[in-house]
Amino acid sequence: MSTLWIRYELDGQAGFGRLEGQRVHEHRGDLFGRHEATGRSVALGDVRVLPPTQPSKVVAMWNNFGELRAKLKLGMPQEPLYLLKSPNSWSAHGAPIEMPRCGGKVVFEGELGIVMGRRCSGVSEAQALEHVFGYTCANEVTQAEILNRDASFAQWVRAKGFDTFCPMGPAIATGLDPQSLRVRTLLDGQVRQDYPISDMTFAVPRLVSLISQDMTLLPGDVILCGTSVGVGSMKPGSTVEVEIEGIGRLSNQLVERSTA
Amino acid sequence: MSTLWIRYELDGQAGFGRLEGQRVHEHRGDLFGRHEATGRSVALGDVRVLPPTQPSKVVAMWNNFGELRAKLKLGMPQEPLYLLKSPNSWSAHGAPIEMPRCGGKVVFEGELGIVMGRRCSGVSEAQALEHVFGYTCANEVTQAEILNRDASFAQWVRAKGFDTFCPMGPAIATGLDPQSLRVRTLLDGQVRQDYPISDMTFAVPRLVSLISQDMTLLPGDVILCGTSVGVGSMKPGSTVEVEIEGIGRLSNQLVERSTA
Repeated sequence: MSTLWIRYELDGQAGFGRLEGQRVHEHRGDLFGRHEATGRSVALGDVRVLPPTQPSKVVAMWNNFGELRAKLKLGMPQEPLYLLKSPNSWSAHGAPIEMPRCGGKVVFEGELGIVMGRRCSGVSEAQALEHVFGYTCANEVTQAEILNRDASFAQWVRAKGFDTFCPMGPAIATGLDPQSLRVRTLLDGQVRQDYPISDMTFAVPRLVSLISQDMTLLPGDVILCGTSVGVGSMKPGSTVEVEIEGIGRLSNQLVERSTA
Repeated sequence: MSTLWIRYELDGQAGFGRLEGQRVHEHRGDLFGRHEATGRSVALGDVRVLPPTQPSKVVAMWNNFGELRAKLKLGMPQEPLYLLKSPNSWSAHGAPIEMPRCGGKVVFEGELGIVMGRRCSGVSEAQALEHVFGYTCANEVTQAEILNRDASFAQWVRAKGFDTFCPMGPAIATGLDPQSLRVRTLLDGQVRQDYPISDMTFAVPRLVSLISQDMTLLPGDVILCGTSVGVGSMKPGSTVEVEIEGIGRLSNQLVERSTA
């Protein structure tokens, strides 16, 4: 049985707590350190859900699922291949995904997010899970036309770094084994992705260990595990939900950019 | 005449102030907003210099100088081509650059850094400079062997994202026009780069305007302008200095990784 942790805003104040059904039981302190229940609780419907973590960085994997690799006829990666999602892209459950000013084809990618709980640098595969706090849902939104239009430089960071292009949440689930989970992505209520985490090329312990050889990972940092088959494009008005059993369902709508 | 702003640590406390010669005149408040002199000052030699800003992101340009483009026979970019430097790479004047665990060829790239002063999103070229706070020196360190070893995915973020691979500083200079400046990079005291900012393909106002169409830029965010000819490799023990007249001289030594 997993425990769900959620960050929220109520009366202009940020808080966090344990989600049980439709109620949030408030805690105070450091989610990744010492914290305690305050005894207060609030209805989920009365708060604004915030991104579940305030990371220093969000690392996003490419080519990490066998079924998508086979479909795209990609080679087996010899090492984790990754980019960074920009801080201006980080967003919350329920928040709009805005069309970029440049327009173009915007695609959803439902993904599992690993949320780090402890600082780690050069951690072994055997000890990697001790540094993981939990797991969340993510939509790794991409403007697909930008990616390869300059033949000399693949624009991964830019294509995936527009404002609001990285919704995560609603909650972080602790105490579950992701290896048995499936990621389901729904476009306007229709299932478009439904793939098993067990198909990951670099599974969670190996992924955390290998990335931590390069970059020190901090509490709250997120590793997006990459996506599999079923990625598709969104139109303004489309709602995309990323659902992982035991973690939750992340829902966001693509909207035309506000003129402000 | 430019003004120099520096962040530092003294007795375990972070502070900032105006640098005049070898003395720092302490200010309090928000460097990018309201602040005032406290009347206290301290010798530069008595403080530990911190990175000059605490950005949400550091955007790094590729292929932005004509002379390097000609040498590498690259095409003229139709748009700014960029990646993100990871937060674990951000570092200060005087701090060691650590060899990555994977070893390999580590190269220096002396660069001009633009420090944003005001939040901007979709700013025009004409108004871009109103949102720039000032300029700093940067060493955009890269593990050159990783970059292209996977033919399907250029590893820009990883090759440039190792811990300590982005020293910046020592100070931020305000009130100068970068267009007339030169970037000089010295390896163990020998000049290896000496190139004019005027050779930039996307000059500062255009660069800020174009990136702000994609990503909201926040106060303290940094845009590294890219490098030109003279990039070279460092060995453990090598000291690299990046010097820009009117801004300062950033000095860092490459060291073997500590075992901790």
